[in-house]
Amino acid sequence: MIYLDNAASSWPKPPQVEESMVEVLRDYGANPGRSGHQLAAKAADTIYQIRSQLAKLFHVKNPNDIVFTQNATESLNLGLKGYLKSGDHVVTTSFEHNSVRRPLEYLREFGVEISYVSGAIDGKLSAQDIEQAIRENTKLIVVTHASNLTGSILPIEELGKLAHKKNIRFMVDASQTAGYCPIDVEAMKIDLLAFTGHKSLYGPQGTGGLYIHPELDLVPLLHGGTGGHSELIEQPPVRPDRYESGTRNTVGIAGLGAGVRFIEETGLDVIRKHEEHLTDFLMEEMGRVKGLTIYGPEKGHPRCPIVSFSIDGFDASEIGFILDTHYQIAVRAGLHCSPLAHETIGTIEGGLVRASLGFFNTKNHIEEFVRALRDIVS
Amino acid sequence: MIYLDNAASSWPKPPQVEESMVEVLRDYGANPGRSGHQLAAKAADTIYQIRSQLAKLFHVKNPNDIVFTQNATESLNLGLKGYLKSGDHVVTTSFEHNSVRRPLEYLREFGVEISYVSGAIDGKLSAQDIEQAIRENTKLIVVTHASNLTGSILPIEELGKLAHKKNIRFMVDASQTAGYCPIDVEAMKIDLLAFTGHKSLYGPQGTGGLYIHPELDLVPLLHGGTGGHSELIEQPPVRPDRYESGTRNTVGIAGLGAGVRFIEETGLDVIRKHEEHLTDFLMEEMGRVKGLTIYGPEKGHPRCPIVSFSIDGFDASEIGFILDTHYQIAVRAGLHCSPLAHETIGTIEGGLVRASLGFFNTKNHIEEFVRALRDIVS
Repeated sequence: MIYLDNAASSWPKPPQVEESMVEVLRDYGANPGRSGHQLAAKAADTIYQIRSQLAKLFHVKNPNDIVFTQNATESLNLGLKGYLKSGDHVVTTSFEHNSVRRPLEYLREFGVEISYVSGAIDGKLSAQDIEQAIRENTKLIVVTHASNLTGSILPIEELGKLAHKKNIRFMVDASQTAGYCPIDVEAMKIDLLAFTGHKSLYGPQGTGGLYIHPELDLVPLLHGGTGGHSELIEQPPVRPDRYESGTRNTVGIAGLGAGVRFIEETGLDVIRKHEEHLTDFLMEEMGRVKGLTIYGPEKGHPRCPIVSFSIDGFDASEIGFILDTHYQIAVRAGLHCSPLAHETIGTIEGGLVRASLGFFNTKNHIEEFVRALRDIVS
Repeated sequence: MIYLDNAASSWPKPPQVEESMVEVLRDYGANPGRSGHQLAAKAADTIYQIRSQLAKLFHVKNPNDIVFTQNATESLNLGLKGYLKSGDHVVTTSFEHNSVRRPLEYLREFGVEISYVSGAIDGKLSAQDIEQAIRENTKLIVVTHASNLTGSILPIEELGKLAHKKNIRFMVDASQTAGYCPIDVEAMKIDLLAFTGHKSLYGPQGTGGLYIHPELDLVPLLHGGTGGHSELIEQPPVRPDRYESGTRNTVGIAGLGAGVRFIEETGLDVIRKHEEHLTDFLMEEMGRVKGLTIYGPEKGHPRCPIVSFSIDGFDASEIGFILDTHYQIAVRAGLHCSPLAHETIGTIEGGLVRASLGFFNTKNHIEEFVRALRDIVS
C-alpha cells in the first residue's frame, strides 16, 4: 500500500508511538490525577511532561495553558463556543473546515454574526482581505493555518499582528500544520491554537489540544469531575482542570508525546524540507500528466504537503477508487469536509482528489503514484 | 503492586486489548469514514463492529443509536445539555458523580430546575423517594446505576418503569456498572445510557459512549466534520454522524472492542460472580479489623465491587499514602468526585478510603490488603 492520505491521518507512525502506548497500558494504566498512588501519579506525570513538550513546541510559557482534547474539532468547539457571545462578530475564511464552519453556524442561532472572507481561486488570502471585514463588534478572527484542500498556508503572523493591533482575539486551526510549520503563539499573537494529535504530530487518533491565552476565560465545553477540587459545585477555575473534565486518554496522549519526541529528535526543519522536496517533485511530475489540473497556489508559494487535483473526463471518486483497487494507493476523493473552499476554487460539483504526504513517503511512492495516474489517463 | 483502584480505571487489561490496539495502529491507522480507500474502510468497519458488540451487550436494536465519546463525562454532558431546556425540571440523586452534578448546576443558570433526592446513610435509595420529587415540568430522571462511593446499586428497572409511566425520559450513568451488571435498555426503559470504556468494559482510557433512544433529538455537543454529508452547513441529521464530529479514537475503540470481547468470552455472570465473591470476602475480612468502619449497604444488598471505609484515628489520605508507599497497594482516598454522596453518608469532612476490585484481583490480594490494614492499626 502506498499511503498518500496523511492530511486525513498520518500513517505509519514512528515506532516509538506504539512503544509508549503499550508501556502506559501495561505498566501504569491507572487514572491520572484521580488517586494518589504510584501508578496514578506516574500517569499524571506522563501527561504533564507531554503538556510541557507541546508547550515548548508552540512556544507556550505555561504548560497548563494547553488543555488536552480528543481531537481538533473538540478544541475548536471549546474555543468558539466558549468565547463567542450573542452580538459578537467573527471574521473567518472560505477555506475553513466544517469543524470551524459548523460551530460558527450553530452560534449564529444565538446571535453571533459571521463574515466569511473569500480567498482567491489559487488558495491565497491576504491580511488586507481580512482587515476589510472587521467591524466595531468583531471579537475574533479565526482562520485555518493551512487549507486542507488547497494546501495553501495562510499569512498567520501578519493576521496575528492585525488582530493584536485591532484588539481582537486571534484563533488558529493548526490541524494541518502543527508538527509541520513552526508555530510560536507569542510571536504570532495567537490567543487560541487548536491542534490535532494524529496528523503531523504523529500521535494516535483520539488526541488533540487547545492552547488558551492566560487572559481568556472560556465557558467549558464539558463540566464534570476533575480529580481535584471535588468539593466545588461549579467547575474549578484552575487550569488545566477547568477544561479537562473526565478521564484523559492517557494511552493516546503517551503516543502523542512519542510523536512529538520523534519531531524533536528528527528536527522540524528536516521533516519539513523532506516533505517540501517531495511535494515539489510530486507537483512537477503531476504537471506532466495529460489532462491533469493541480489546484492551490503555484510552486514556490507556501504550501503544506497537500496536492489536490482533477483529471479531465474523470470523476474524483472514480480516480480514488481506481487508485485504491488497482494500484493499492490511498488518496482521498470528495469534498474533504470543506465545501466553501471547493466553492471558492470552483470544484464544488465534482470534488477533487487529494494526495497528501508525510515524512515516511519516498520519491519512489511518488513515481509509482504518477505512473498510475498516467496509466489511468491512457 | 496490588491494584485495588478499579473503580477509577481497571488495570491490568486483558492482553487482547493491547493486541487489538497495536493491530489498528500498525496495520490500518487511517481515518475512519474520511476516505474511501481500504485502510480507511477497514478502520470504519472496525468501529461499526464494536458499535454492534456494544449494542448487543446493552440490548440496543440499532447500533447507530450508540455514539462513541471520549469518556462518560462527555456522554453525560451530551445527554444533559443536549436534552434539557429552560423551564425543564430534572430529578436526580445525592449519589451522583460531579460528571452529572456539574453539568446540571451549569444548566441551572439557563433555567433548568433540579431536585436532588437524598439517599439513605447506607447508600440505598428507593423509587418512592424519586417519585415524590416528580413535578408537572419534570422532563428527566437521571441517576447513577451504582454509587462510585458506596458501591450501592440503585433500582434501575423500577426507576425506568416509574419514568415510563410518568412519561418522563430516563437517563442512567453506567460508569461503574457497564460490563459488570446486566443492562437492557429496552427492559429497563432507559432513554439515555452513558458509559465509560476504561472501567468494567476493560477498554483503554479515552473511550466511552452514549446510547440515545431513537425518538430523542439532542443538540450535539460538538459541531464539525463527519466525513459524509460535507456539503451541509448544519450538522447532518443521520446517526451516529450527528453526534460524532471529528476523528474518532480508532485505536482506543479497537481496545474497547477487545475488552467487550473478553467479557463476551468470559461471561458477564462469571465475571460478576467472581467479583461478588471477592467483595463478600473483602467485607468479611475488613469487618474484623479493629476500628474500621465499612460504608454503604450491608452484605447481601446489591453492591458493586467497591468497599469504602474509614479507620478510627486515621485520615483517609494517610491510609492511602501508607498503603501505597509501605505496602505497594493502590487504593483511592478522598472525595472521589462525589461530595454530595459524602454529605449523605456523613463523611464529607475526612473523606474515605475506597478499595475497588476487578476481575484480575485474587483472594490473595485481599488477604495481603487486610494484613496491611491490621498492621497499620496496630
